[in-house]
Amino acid sequence: MNADHSNAPRVVALAGGVGGARLVDGLDSVLPKDALTIVVNTGDDFVHWGLHISPDLDTVMYTLAGLAPEERGWGIEGDTFHVLAEAERRGADAWFRLGDRDLMTHLLRSRALAGGDSLTKATAKLCGGLEVMRPILPMSDSPRPTTIVTRSGDEMAFQDWLVRARAAPEVQRVEHGGPDRPTGQVIEALRSADLVVICPSNPYVSIGPILSLEGIRPILREKPTVAVSPILAGRAVKGPLSSMIAQLEGKPASAEQIATHYQDLLDGFVVHTGDAFSATFPVLESNILIQTREDRVVLARALLDFAGSLR
Amino acid sequence: MNADHSNAPRVVALAGGVGGARLVDGLDSVLPKDALTIVVNTGDDFVHWGLHISPDLDTVMYTLAGLAPEERGWGIEGDTFHVLAEAERRGADAWFRLGDRDLMTHLLRSRALAGGDSLTKATAKLCGGLEVMRPILPMSDSPRPTTIVTRSGDEMAFQDWLVRARAAPEVQRVEHGGPDRPTGQVIEALRSADLVVICPSNPYVSIGPILSLEGIRPILREKPTVAVSPILAGRAVKGPLSSMIAQLEGKPASAEQIATHYQDLLDGFVVHTGDAFSATFPVLESNILIQTREDRVVLARALLDFAGSLR
Repeated sequence: MNADHSNAPRVVALAGGVGGARLVDGLDSVLPKDALTIVVNTGDDFVHWGLHISPDLDTVMYTLAGLAPEERGWGIEGDTFHVLAEAERRGADAWFRLGDRDLMTHLLRSRALAGGDSLTKATAKLCGGLEVMRPILPMSDSPRPTTIVTRSGDEMAFQDWLVRARAAPEVQRVEHGGPDRPTGQVIEALRSADLVVICPSNPYVSIGPILSLEGIRPILREKPTVAVSPILAGRAVKGPLSSMIAQLEGKPASAEQIATHYQDLLDGFVVHTGDAFSATFPVLESNILIQTREDRVVLARALLDFAGSLR
Repeated sequence: MNADHSNAPRVVALAGGVGGARLVDGLDSVLPKDALTIVVNTGDDFVHWGLHISPDLDTVMYTLAGLAPEERGWGIEGDTFHVLAEAERRGADAWFRLGDRDLMTHLLRSRALAGGDSLTKATAKLCGGLEVMRPILPMSDSPRPTTIVTRSGDEMAFQDWLVRARAAPEVQRVEHGGPDRPTGQVIEALRSADLVVICPSNPYVSIGPILSLEGIRPILREKPTVAVSPILAGRAVKGPLSSMIAQLEGKPASAEQIATHYQDLLDGFVVHTGDAFSATFPVLESNILIQTREDRVVLARALLDFAGSLR
């Protein structure tokens, strides 16, 4: 297995939001057509303004469409917020910041679902409308909502906790509801993969929901699987991961902590330069701060070369 | 019965889109609280982008909220069209011009209906959000779609004909589908009315759907009923009414033609200055071109005085 385009591995990337989307963007740049499938967390999905919203699917889709903001981890670059302003004016829910262009995604998705499309099919249509050609697969066509159980015993829907409550309530545990049924397309993509990449996404609330589905872990144990650390010098690049690790594990955040979390699945692990540790599998140091397209491509190439060297 | 505020008649206005909304606006200015209920056509309602859209309810509501454009017969003054531009960009339906602020109305209505509210209740919530205090009642809580049967035999949903096809296909006949069931609130309002006003709306596609409901015509025959002509000097102020009269009746448009259409219901009729004709009921001449608030108020006062003089 190597990263040569003429004989590229078939890669399946497991991704959540912005960190995952950025690595996927790098892989998208270096892998030929048909050599990359992205499986995306839908545990964050929720209904808002009566619309079905899939935050992680959208982040990955917008990133591959070249529409994602470089800094902000959600929505479309340069979007306006006129509908949201009207919601505020009328006293309707305005805590989830839906942009005007972004809103069309949720309208089209909701209409497709109401018309009987699976989430997989609705996602393919949305990608088509944005000229995204890579297959982006929701992990499941059934709702599998992530619930945050707080230290004070409240059960909060994930977006309520993350966005409305600004991830402030301490996390006691994370639960995955609904049927643990991945789609046939996800299982098929994983079965025919030469390499599974676990993207630098939150292991509890982004990758965890995917791994919680029936049949996923057994396939990953058989396949060459490489993860990229979402922790860099003891801190998460984005989002509430550092404090979640402290609250859930009672330990400070570290790349090694992430590797321990995935240890039964890993054949290799990629950490930021200076974060290496000794493990039962090879650990690669690379720049994992991948805000720019250039850095994403460098990491994707390094990752594929590393994976190719593992056998 | 008279227009004195201390002893105002209880008025029910039957209204369609912009012409009806403008007269309602005048009545709203001169009638005290609890003395005006507006019953609105829902035959134009349709589903677009997966949302329930009620064009006539919205026109009346926006007009009473002071949000309607003075010239244009739909939407909100100064609205932006960023979501629509995104629909165009993605190749989604963009023939119905939904503004960004307007869109919030359809989102909130659709969510309320999906949550089990009746259209009557959803409308009351929307009015509350825009601080419109007058009761605006949809004629029915059940779909009662207006269909245009064209001379070439096509059956077109009303908005398809009016907006998408720009009212170009010749009209053979107008049909009202779905159950002919008014709401209990509509029947109750009409039963307790001292005066029914048929607003200057299209008699075939705005007032016709209301009159097609079971029990409405018998009440109107018992109640003092006054109509305002939507035809002025042989032409419709707005919309496709002139050509519809020619196509449906084989006659040129005239105020008298409208009176003939309603003749079994009328106790009085208001026409534009110079349009009077002799009839079996009194005919009042007044300025019925009511684009400005001032003109609306003048017509409303004249109408109420006229109605008060009929007995």
